[in-house]
Amino acid sequence: MTQRMKATVSYDGTHFSGFQVQEKNRTVQGELEKALMKIHKGQPIRIQASGRTDAGVHARGQVIHFDTELRMGDYNWRKALNTLLADDVRITDITEAEEGFHARYSVKRKQYKYFVHNAPEQDVFKRHYVHHVPYQLETSRIQQAIKAIEGTHDFSAFCSARTGVKGDKIRTIYGAVCEKQEDMLVFTFTGSGFLYNMVRILAGTLIDIGNGRKEPEDMARILASKDRHEASKTAAASGLCLWKVDY
Amino acid sequence: MTQRMKATVSYDGTHFSGFQVQEKNRTVQGELEKALMKIHKGQPIRIQASGRTDAGVHARGQVIHFDTELRMGDYNWRKALNTLLADDVRITDITEAEEGFHARYSVKRKQYKYFVHNAPEQDVFKRHYVHHVPYQLETSRIQQAIKAIEGTHDFSAFCSARTGVKGDKIRTIYGAVCEKQEDMLVFTFTGSGFLYNMVRILAGTLIDIGNGRKEPEDMARILASKDRHEASKTAAASGLCLWKVDY
Repeated sequence: MTQRMKATVSYDGTHFSGFQVQEKNRTVQGELEKALMKIHKGQPIRIQASGRTDAGVHARGQVIHFDTELRMGDYNWRKALNTLLADDVRITDITEAEEGFHARYSVKRKQYKYFVHNAPEQDVFKRHYVHHVPYQLETSRIQQAIKAIEGTHDFSAFCSARTGVKGDKIRTIYGAVCEKQEDMLVFTFTGSGFLYNMVRILAGTLIDIGNGRKEPEDMARILASKDRHEASKTAAASGLCLWKVDY
Repeated sequence: MTQRMKATVSYDGTHFSGFQVQEKNRTVQGELEKALMKIHKGQPIRIQASGRTDAGVHARGQVIHFDTELRMGDYNWRKALNTLLADDVRITDITEAEEGFHARYSVKRKQYKYFVHNAPEQDVFKRHYVHHVPYQLETSRIQQAIKAIEGTHDFSAFCSARTGVKGDKIRTIYGAVCEKQEDMLVFTFTGSGFLYNMVRILAGTLIDIGNGRKEPEDMARILASKDRHEASKTAAASGLCLWKVDY
């Protein structure tokens, strides 16, 4: 009998060409499916994720599911997969999924964090996991602006033009917070869902507000414009981390 | 007129074959001297460091000096060097050295930190900067044992047999501390000087004590034995970081 397994996956996106499987490049999905195929003695196993992440984007709490006829207990599943996977992707939790669970369709909330390292010089230990901004950012300006993002809005202004997705651009953001931790600014966004590049465009715009190129009041105006050209540049992939997915 | 410059250097040791220059492999000294040679229009500039670090070992506060006839101000020195260096090595501070300063001979105290990640699974974001221990370590046992290291001792038991250095093995450790920070154990050693692989052999021994393979009381006994075979295996280079050098 087929059983659906739910797994939490952590990955360092630095050396991946994103999550979604590609023919030639190394992807998280590709690596996971290769490991699962080995465990299933050559039988291909497809995984479903809560959503994709781009090249260079990290995850602490990506969630996937797959269907299997194998039974081996949660501990053995974790060990078997982690033994086969390279050390930049880890299964941190795996268990039998509840009836009707779907990694993508059952998502209730997602949380992303965006890490900005605000210091004159890059930090060699953080460089792959942050977006480095050498000029001074004013936290209070960002904290004022970020509040405008909370609530239900049409986020067209913060959606990449390259999106292939049809349908409305209305999403609900339950929380948008900026915290200062020493020389790091951490933006945390919790929402019902996110558009393509949405967090990185929000981050780029908040950085411009922190630097004085835009005003804190501009955030609401840009949101209302629904025009991608009003928002700032997409901030670096390295600063973004899919932190948590709630079901 | 020649001026001596003192610089603080931070590096991610992961992709370096150690500090000291080698003919074929990428080293921190090699990269720094290459950058300095470019700034000096092809003139070779030799650097002196507070000491070497091994392949895979990191530094937050390595200190170097070099002599130059160029004058350009501290800010410009830092910018010029960091522009030429790859992003896994950074000059965090550079200034004119005081009369008689020598990066190696003027050292008063050095501080090393050793990071142990104690969790069932590796962390993809920490993997290059820690030594991962999957089985449980008892912090209190390590905290008891580490105190025996403080003071002036003959550290022969904690010196690699591969050392080429002649002379006595007596060193003074001003502080040896183990702190628990979530799933990390951080060992901090502050001393007058350290023998070859000393911190990594101390760390390996402390891990064995934390795990119950050795007893906390064994630390003093091993120290007194002056016998390298009594101590444990050299712990991984990735966990070690040269934190600070005082003059």
